Amino acid sequence: MTGRAVVLLSGGLDSATVLAEAVRAGYECHSLAVDYGQRHRSELAAAARVSAELGAVSHRVVSVDLRSIGGSALTDDLAVPETPAPGIPVTYVPARNTLMLALALGYAEVIEGRDLFVGVNAVDYSGYPDCRPQFISAFEELAQVATRAGAEGRRFHVHAPLIDLSKAEIIRRGVILGVDYSITVSCYQADDRGLACGRCDSCRLRRAGFEAAGVSDPTRYARTG
Amino acid sequence: MTGRAVVLLSGGLDSATVLAEAVRAGYECHSLAVDYGQRHRSELAAAARVSAELGAVSHRVVSVDLRSIGGSALTDDLAVPETPAPGIPVTYVPARNTLMLALALGYAEVIEGRDLFVGVNAVDYSGYPDCRPQFISAFEELAQVATRAGAEGRRFHVHAPLIDLSKAEIIRRGVILGVDYSITVSCYQADDRGLACGRCDSCRLRRAGFEAAGVSDPTRYARTG
Repeated sequence: MTGRAVVLLSGGLDSATVLAEAVRAGYECHSLAVDYGQRHRSELAAAARVSAELGAVSHRVVSVDLRSIGGSALTDDLAVPETPAPGIPVTYVPARNTLMLALALGYAEVIEGRDLFVGVNAVDYSGYPDCRPQFISAFEELAQVATRAGAEGRRFHVHAPLIDLSKAEIIRRGVILGVDYSITVSCYQADDRGLACGRCDSCRLRRAGFEAAGVSDPTRYARTG
Repeated sequence: MTGRAVVLLSGGLDSATVLAEAVRAGYECHSLAVDYGQRHRSELAAAARVSAELGAVSHRVVSVDLRSIGGSALTDDLAVPETPAPGIPVTYVPARNTLMLALALGYAEVIEGRDLFVGVNAVDYSGYPDCRPQFISAFEELAQVATRAGAEGRRFHVHAPLIDLSKAEIIRRGVILGVDYSITVSCYQADDRGLACGRCDSCRLRRAGFEAAGVSDPTRYARTG
């Protein structure tokens, strides 16, 4: 056992793979989902399933209502784009990963863990500033000075094991770790049953990932895209 | 006009003074209160009053329910201490300032502001790791890499104008800026009308501050402490 870890779970493919990695590495994993008013509510149900299925010892949900400050197609009433556009996508949630890691850090303090796991990925999400390695490093430095444990000399680690992997590599790794991707939901506009639209950016990336990995796509689609 | 700023408001004495400073400096101030499940709910009402009174152009409240991850006398059912103890107080909320600044940063991105104001203070709150200058610097560095604006080369600034001031110095500065401290609430266990207990750590610090500043204490107490 290498200690307690907080694992951020979105209910999607990436964070499920991260949890499987953290469990395999021997951490006592406490998963944390953040309900930030996202439109794809079935993600939260998926996160709870993934937590139980992959062996986390606890699962918590923290609610943050970002709707009062707006700013993203994932929380506002903007249309989710179905064709990729250059630059930072409108589905970018302002400071989302900063916020999620802040919550994970607070929870780590409470459970006296010093390891945070997050499924950020710089390859497929190159348009998101808070998915880059320099963001992870900067947050890790912040954690040392922001916390009681850090102030007392214990070091926090922010693990982002997927950061340099392609979607296909993530999927291949997850298959080796025994992740059942049929219970994960990646779609930006999944329906109440967690069925994917097959058309949004996230669905396209995911489907292409299974194809590139040479793995049969277990995603439950609402209709063929 | 020096641009738009997000000013974190708690409803207390310190953040009211910070808002007055930011308004005086010429910023278009958008105040932000964070409802993190604190027991002293009248703080939130005070924050809205302070925002309007001191000239912020908007006021928003973001709700974050920290009760699911616990860890503080301010959100749990622990007793609020009435005698100061050495070390980090039990009223410390895990990663609170990291979380509050993360929300302020997200909001700044939405309104296209690059200045954040926060009332942290290293003198009276020396036991809180996230009230130290190195925390503010580390968050400012994080902001550059965490955001769209930062990634595009615009610099964020985290202003903590009270960080080196004593409570008495803060009060003297606020009086010069015209802050009406009677509308602020600092008490950890203020009642529904915002009346202070006069006995908790926060009340003691505040009362001593007015005494040291030689300023008549306008605080509305529920009873004499």
